[in-house]
Amino acid sequence: MTIRRSAPARQPSLREHNLALVLGEVAAAGAVSRARIAAATGLTKATVSTLVDALVAAGLLRELGPSAAVGVGRPGSSLTLASGPVGIGLEVNVDYLATCTVDLNGTVRRREVVAQDFRRVAPAVALNRAAAALRAAVQDARAAGGVVGGVTVAVPGLVETARGLVRLAPNLGWRDVALPDELLDRVGPDVRPALAGVPLRVGNEADLAALAELWNGDHRRADGRPLDSFVHVSGEIGVGAAIVIGGQLFGGVRGFGGELGHLPLAPDGPLCGCGSRGCLEQYAGQDAILRRAGLEATAGTSIGRPGGSVEDLIARAEAGEEQVLAAVRAAGEALGAGIAAMVNLVDVDTVLLGGLYALLAPWLLEPVQDQVARRVLASRWDATRVLVGRLGADGAVRGAATSVVRAVIDDPAAWIAAAALESIAADVVDPDGAPSAGRQ
Amino acid sequence: MTIRRSAPARQPSLREHNLALVLGEVAAAGAVSRARIAAATGLTKATVSTLVDALVAAGLLRELGPSAAVGVGRPGSSLTLASGPVGIGLEVNVDYLATCTVDLNGTVRRREVVAQDFRRVAPAVALNRAAAALRAAVQDARAAGGVVGGVTVAVPGLVETARGLVRLAPNLGWRDVALPDELLDRVGPDVRPALAGVPLRVGNEADLAALAELWNGDHRRADGRPLDSFVHVSGEIGVGAAIVIGGQLFGGVRGFGGELGHLPLAPDGPLCGCGSRGCLEQYAGQDAILRRAGLEATAGTSIGRPGGSVEDLIARAEAGEEQVLAAVRAAGEALGAGIAAMVNLVDVDTVLLGGLYALLAPWLLEPVQDQVARRVLASRWDATRVLVGRLGADGAVRGAATSVVRAVIDDPAAWIAAAALESIAADVVDPDGAPSAGRQ
Repeated sequence: MTIRRSAPARQPSLREHNLALVLGEVAAAGAVSRARIAAATGLTKATVSTLVDALVAAGLLRELGPSAAVGVGRPGSSLTLASGPVGIGLEVNVDYLATCTVDLNGTVRRREVVAQDFRRVAPAVALNRAAAALRAAVQDARAAGGVVGGVTVAVPGLVETARGLVRLAPNLGWRDVALPDELLDRVGPDVRPALAGVPLRVGNEADLAALAELWNGDHRRADGRPLDSFVHVSGEIGVGAAIVIGGQLFGGVRGFGGELGHLPLAPDGPLCGCGSRGCLEQYAGQDAILRRAGLEATAGTSIGRPGGSVEDLIARAEAGEEQVLAAVRAAGEALGAGIAAMVNLVDVDTVLLGGLYALLAPWLLEPVQDQVARRVLASRWDATRVLVGRLGADGAVRGAATSVVRAVIDDPAAWIAAAALESIAADVVDPDGAPSAGRQ
Repeated sequence: MTIRRSAPARQPSLREHNLALVLGEVAAAGAVSRARIAAATGLTKATVSTLVDALVAAGLLRELGPSAAVGVGRPGSSLTLASGPVGIGLEVNVDYLATCTVDLNGTVRRREVVAQDFRRVAPAVALNRAAAALRAAVQDARAAGGVVGGVTVAVPGLVETARGLVRLAPNLGWRDVALPDELLDRVGPDVRPALAGVPLRVGNEADLAALAELWNGDHRRADGRPLDSFVHVSGEIGVGAAIVIGGQLFGGVRGFGGELGHLPLAPDGPLCGCGSRGCLEQYAGQDAILRRAGLEATAGTSIGRPGGSVEDLIARAEAGEEQVLAAVRAAGEALGAGIAAMVNLVDVDTVLLGGLYALLAPWLLEPVQDQVARRVLASRWDATRVLVGRLGADGAVRGAATSVVRAVIDDPAAWIAAAALESIAADVVDPDGAPSAGRQ
């Protein structure tokens, strides 16, 4: 019998833990006094004051001024999150390029979406355009007095997040793209220093869209508590899914999970871009729906964006065109069968539909729910809920941006160390001599 | 942005933790001195001695006598696991009933398999037979001087492990069976006290078979380290799967995951017992293989057991009968497509085939590997390995028994508390007045 030794109990770095504890308390409460932080965390008031001073100095917390508290003693000054370092999300998708900048509170400060067709261009062209979009976002953040806390890039593909490597993005035609390096190379010497000391991460777009719904979707469980376990299925050109259990992304061993689009639904079905036949994507992907509806996929087709075929599809569905409704219904049945298979494998009680599927929900939801109710074994005693995501097509880029500031809030000590390095780098290299604006 | 407060850092129960640490060290090392335990755990020798005394008194550790260590100082006595409380596994499957008893080392002390056909009998009949098998196992354990550390029952169905409730076992015809209560009611007044104070748990057979391969299969990763992340697929009448990540079972929200048998492979396929069409079970389940091979499913069909159709199937495959080989090949292709879909969703790099599939591996492995290599997206740069499980049809019941003693080793403090209660109950109730045999 193989038994693994467990490690002896050891103290985690107490200061790191407590910095995160204090910052997390303010983030959860919105505005709160030192005394209340001490009461909520169990730390002494002296410890709280020391930690608060460090967080204020790092530009993560700010004073709101004396509170109007009634009672004896010195009135406590209230603390709130500073607008702090901003998180930049960049999404390189098959038919659009999006950027999103959020402040430390997760509030969106800037958003930009440009229709692009990356299906027939060389990876270098897509990378150049992505770098230009990132460059603009960084320049705007700095012009507004912000410090970049990090960048996360969402891509529709299989990503080794730890290595920052896109192993495969079939609909982009990418293989083994080291995305952070490629973007840093292209972003320009004036902008590069602002990104040198901070984390540049890459994530799967379905994963990040799922996290956005977790963090910003305000979904509830059947008992009213915040929803923290679900499968999120997002329709785009491909079909991606992500599993969230207990507020954490479940990514399997290497983080490549959630490839729902390549579930085989019929052995003799249409050929898929992955080389197999009858994949779900060929029945429920955006191009398959457009084709069956009698519409051609056109450039500028981007979901949820003005113009293009998807807007046309929705307008025709609203007008009750039978071929369009039949196409969406057929996609819903295939999608529902695929979702049911996934739920039977990973066991969640709630499914969120995102991306294109959120837009098509008025016609798609019922066939999906029918299939799920019929095919999920646990549905017989515990109904599987199928809900519509709230962030539409913006989920992935919003989740990418928010993941940056969540990482800062979860580990402010790491941010403080990185910011110190970045400050030195910016002072040395920045050619226009701008001070590291907005950092206190 | 919803941010959840994290709990303040608090000390876990240090004594509980350290008891587990010391016992785990002995379990991993086999035989080891107090001094080496102290060195390995970072605990003082005095603390180790106190903890060892408690574990010896509880019958979990025993002294091997002075070691022949060369060197200065008092020679240290070596410690090893006591044969300790035994774990009893009971498997109620569709066409057999199995029991397995292991000691604290995980060594099998007793094993019994009886062919049964539970497909056409009332649940009460199956429960009576299961209780009789459990009764015999408990009596034998006590006659051999053992103390029962707990019982885990493996069933082919969806189980709420926390409540001990079998929600649905389609091939047994069970709905909402509170298995521990039902078994305790039927086990007899002389045996019941031995089970009163100890955990009676229920688990899914595919989950427990997967854990058995994790604990006792001695599988290795590609780099030679112990394999701790994989999907285990076990073929029986149904097709069950389980996901193990980092040495832990991944069961989803309620533990109902792994229902691979109901993956829809063809929209117009054969009707399945679950009410849907074209489920994988209808192409790769035991009955489907027998039917396609031109063999009738007969009673005593139990996989890996003497007599019955499966033995016939294997004999004919060995003789090269074309219809039989074609049936197994077709099952392998369907199974491979299903496994690939699962791997694309949950991302593992290793798949273990268990139960019937382990027996059919000489003919089944190649078509499964072909499909997996073609359909798993990550296989293009990182081959997905398909290996054969080592425990054959005994996996689930062995895993059930082993899970009992693993729970004792992981949390000896809970066992010590439960054993104290059981001892009192046995002294009061046991009609034949036998002392709580074997406990020290």
